[in-house]
Amino acid sequence: MSRWQPNARGRLRQAAFELYGEHGFDQTTVAQIAERAGLTERTFYRHFTDKREVVFSGEVHRVLVSTLAEAPASMTAIEAVTAALDAAAAVLDERRDMTRRRQAVIAANPSLQQREQIKYATLAADLAEALRGRGVEPSSAGLAADVAVAVFRTAFERWIDVGEQRDFGRLVRDTLDELHAVVSGETSRHPERVALRGGLDRPVDGADDG
Amino acid sequence: MSRWQPNARGRLRQAAFELYGEHGFDQTTVAQIAERAGLTERTFYRHFTDKREVVFSGEVHRVLVSTLAEAPASMTAIEAVTAALDAAAAVLDERRDMTRRRQAVIAANPSLQQREQIKYATLAADLAEALRGRGVEPSSAGLAADVAVAVFRTAFERWIDVGEQRDFGRLVRDTLDELHAVVSGETSRHPERVALRGGLDRPVDGADDG
Repeated sequence: MSRWQPNARGRLRQAAFELYGEHGFDQTTVAQIAERAGLTERTFYRHFTDKREVVFSGEVHRVLVSTLAEAPASMTAIEAVTAALDAAAAVLDERRDMTRRRQAVIAANPSLQQREQIKYATLAADLAEALRGRGVEPSSAGLAADVAVAVFRTAFERWIDVGEQRDFGRLVRDTLDELHAVVSGETSRHPERVALRGGLDRPVDGADDG
Repeated sequence: MSRWQPNARGRLRQAAFELYGEHGFDQTTVAQIAERAGLTERTFYRHFTDKREVVFSGEVHRVLVSTLAEAPASMTAIEAVTAALDAAAAVLDERRDMTRRRQAVIAANPSLQQREQIKYATLAADLAEALRGRGVEPSSAGLAADVAVAVFRTAFERWIDVGEQRDFGRLVRDTLDELHAVVSGETSRHPERVALRGGLDRPVDGADDG
């Protein structure tokens, strides 16, 4: 009974983000999304549980977690995390324009913003579990997973910026370099855009924690 | 009209965590909390907006953000973050038993767990703003703030563990050392409890990302 629809998922997603951008997420119905995509509601529900799942489909999440879990056992935690971020880059760089539209939809809707925060927390928990599966002690796995999410978020926010040309993989490397600089208390290797030792031109007000 | 009640806030908090532990958070009413504390509901509402605010009073949050914002301008981002974590330690180490009871209440209630995740996201946003106020470039401020929250969470989860004797400040230092090791890809300085290069005893399955 069900006809195969070429790239139905992609067409539905495209239509959804157009409508979310035009009318707002809350005002858009599944019927409208299906109509815009030239498909039926039934087809929509074969691909997505509801209109929110179009925004949070979890593909990047799955790529990150599975790559981390399956990285060669000889890799250190940070090497495995980097491999996972590189795998996410391969997915993300294919869909930069769509992801920018998606982020504009999230930015316009507080409940989607809250959902995104929960998704990041879930991602950290799943990455920690993958690291524990590699034999990393639980508490250290939590720390490394939180750091992985911090790097992902920072690279991601830079990558969706309209003026940013670098691809996601390159931004991940730059963010990892910068993380190293932050943790070491060193000045970053990218002084043109980073000011880790901030406020030096302000007068020191005599406050002292010693 | 209102009589001064010695340490009313502390008595209400104590009573609330007892009742949340005995009957569950959802089943406990403000009237019961006030009665257990020997105070009136009116006094409760002078100190807390609702029974959830007893769990998320935000004192540690405020200490972290204000210390970071007011740290000497000569400090690097990581130095200022460390000063903020030390200030949080001074508050937390005064209330370790109560905080352990609090975490047991959160662990037993999914909606409180979700609220805690949102609180961590809000903390990261507020720390990032404090770093921007110190002159740190916005995207770098976000990264440093996320790292600060990662260190806080890791140290906190170790600190509330019933078997853990070290105080919060000491756990922060150890976690910062470990963060340095994670980011450098080095083995930690605490090999007895950390296995950052995990899974070496499993066979390497020939997978290779090169």
